[in-house]
Amino acid sequence: MLRPPLSVLTADLPSTVPFVGPEAQERARGAAFKARIGANESVFGPSDGVIAAMQAAAPDMWKYCDPENHDLKQALAAWHGISPDNICIGEGIDGLFGTTARLFVDPGTRVATSAGAYPTFNFQVAGAGGEIVTCPYVDDREDPASLLALARREGARLIYLANPDNPMGTWWRAGEIQAMIDDLPEGAVLCLDEAYGEFAPAGTMPDLDVHNPQVLRFRTFSKAYGLAGLRVGYVIGEAQVIKAYDKIRNHFGVNRMAQVAAEAALADEDWLDTVVVRVHAARSEIVRIAHENGLEALPSATNFVAIDCGHDGPFAKALLDSLIQQGVFVRMPGVAPLNRCIRVSAGREDDLDIFEQALPKALAAAHG
Amino acid sequence: MLRPPLSVLTADLPSTVPFVGPEAQERARGAAFKARIGANESVFGPSDGVIAAMQAAAPDMWKYCDPENHDLKQALAAWHGISPDNICIGEGIDGLFGTTARLFVDPGTRVATSAGAYPTFNFQVAGAGGEIVTCPYVDDREDPASLLALARREGARLIYLANPDNPMGTWWRAGEIQAMIDDLPEGAVLCLDEAYGEFAPAGTMPDLDVHNPQVLRFRTFSKAYGLAGLRVGYVIGEAQVIKAYDKIRNHFGVNRMAQVAAEAALADEDWLDTVVVRVHAARSEIVRIAHENGLEALPSATNFVAIDCGHDGPFAKALLDSLIQQGVFVRMPGVAPLNRCIRVSAGREDDLDIFEQALPKALAAAHG
Repeated sequence: MLRPPLSVLTADLPSTVPFVGPEAQERARGAAFKARIGANESVFGPSDGVIAAMQAAAPDMWKYCDPENHDLKQALAAWHGISPDNICIGEGIDGLFGTTARLFVDPGTRVATSAGAYPTFNFQVAGAGGEIVTCPYVDDREDPASLLALARREGARLIYLANPDNPMGTWWRAGEIQAMIDDLPEGAVLCLDEAYGEFAPAGTMPDLDVHNPQVLRFRTFSKAYGLAGLRVGYVIGEAQVIKAYDKIRNHFGVNRMAQVAAEAALADEDWLDTVVVRVHAARSEIVRIAHENGLEALPSATNFVAIDCGHDGPFAKALLDSLIQQGVFVRMPGVAPLNRCIRVSAGREDDLDIFEQALPKALAAAHG
Repeated sequence: MLRPPLSVLTADLPSTVPFVGPEAQERARGAAFKARIGANESVFGPSDGVIAAMQAAAPDMWKYCDPENHDLKQALAAWHGISPDNICIGEGIDGLFGTTARLFVDPGTRVATSAGAYPTFNFQVAGAGGEIVTCPYVDDREDPASLLALARREGARLIYLANPDNPMGTWWRAGEIQAMIDDLPEGAVLCLDEAYGEFAPAGTMPDLDVHNPQVLRFRTFSKAYGLAGLRVGYVIGEAQVIKAYDKIRNHFGVNRMAQVAAEAALADEDWLDTVVVRVHAARSEIVRIAHENGLEALPSATNFVAIDCGHDGPFAKALLDSLIQQGVFVRMPGVAPLNRCIRVSAGREDDLDIFEQALPKALAAAHG
């Protein structure tokens, strides 16, 4: 056999990696990062209670996880005031995007998103044979009107929009998103990524409507709940659509530790409030640091701030490279004109001190 | 929109669940099982050192996992004496079967397995649009000669064989498996599931040959390593084939806790030896209990024993139902003539005491 008999769908796909992890960068530079504020993780961590729940559950890891995710699903249903039948839990939103793509995308199916929006969604669509079509951000926001027009023109079956947005941190009000939902083309499904929803002002996320089969709402324990390492996300949707996930999902994919920790995290509302307050304070600090270095910061409804470095992509990249070299893990958007920015996640005081010390040198390096 | 616009591939698939978990059965019966010896988990658990490693890692769960699984992959490569390029780590063997099916299977692609063999493999193949073709077990073993003939006749692109086998516990010697490998049809890839390999006699698993693109070897931390709840498996294969997994896998799918625990477990060779000794002792106990109840037990190279209940499927099912009712979680094969058996996992002394007490009543119930 000269080459493996790969499927038509996958034979010509590249072996890409949607994100290089900070660990790989640490291995490449031969040193650990001093500040890990690049992946929009919650440096404030899970609460002590959630940590204790994980530690107590450790001896039980010989048992397979519940493939129905029953207890966590019940807790989420109660939290949202919906039925468990409207929820599918998966291995992070990334894992759910994989299942969603396979559920809706045939080879050649068009899928609409914004140029520079979340790349793992595109990766998963490509893996199902779909064809990504894009429209630009408008004023650093994913643009509902452009997306709807694009979807109509291209006959897109899925439309992706993150609200609040990653990587820019911008957002729309609930009414504007609801207007988009009301105007969805026949036969199109909106994948509404609300990973950062907990950090947004009240009135950012539209009310749930679990009777609408055209809308899927994606939520996660990776951001505000501080459990990125455990990979737990969920999708809320109309019951028949949600039931379809059972056709192909890895039923045992959300592991036992993840289920235990997510359930404990959901119950700890005080910690969620604490984290949100800390994130708001950290955002203000990042804005202050940007301003003191003569840079503009974009308004943010997330746990990160996009700093406009004031020039083009190569300039921001040079600045970012210097930060990385100085031990500060940050990331930046990949597409112009978004890539005039770097993206800095909310950090603890010491993380932001390190960033504050490194930024002037990085600016000088980029200018030099 | 009257119905969700599902892909052609998934629209007609059933929303099946490959396995109902014991938790679902516990919810249905309104009481916890007294003995959990039905899912071939390791009741002996992970070692104290692995538990401590998990507990120490709990506060770090705010960090995303390394998408390259670098440290665990290096450790596995050293353990096996192969290159990390020959290993892909996934969310249990189940998760890897999903990726494997998508990598190799086009709609209508034939895939050969044995009637009654591991159902999740079939589930994943169906999810990729493949068509399962089967041949029977011969003398309670998956039969290499039958599988090869079937694959030739049907032009199968994948062939599944578990050695040792689940659900029967039977096995082939390495030389017999090697002969099958040497005789694989052009263009066919053997998925050799060795989840239970650590429990088998020396000389059961053929030597690794990472230069052969026609063989994929699947291993897991769910059985001997006692980490079923964390979902870590890996596949060993030729480097180009392994690289193809990066095309579509959920790169962040193996979570941080899983990576930490698996690495610690791999390093603890003493515990592995201890578990294997305990499993062998438990198997002997299960055989003794079967014999004392007038039943035959099949020889086993796994961490479970198939007990031949001496009659047909409905009889074994009645016996199983009584065991379940008495609080003993066990399972049974789904296909005749394998379904004359029940499958009992290696348990601790108290688990097997409970089983021993329940079996005579279950036999009486089945006869009655």
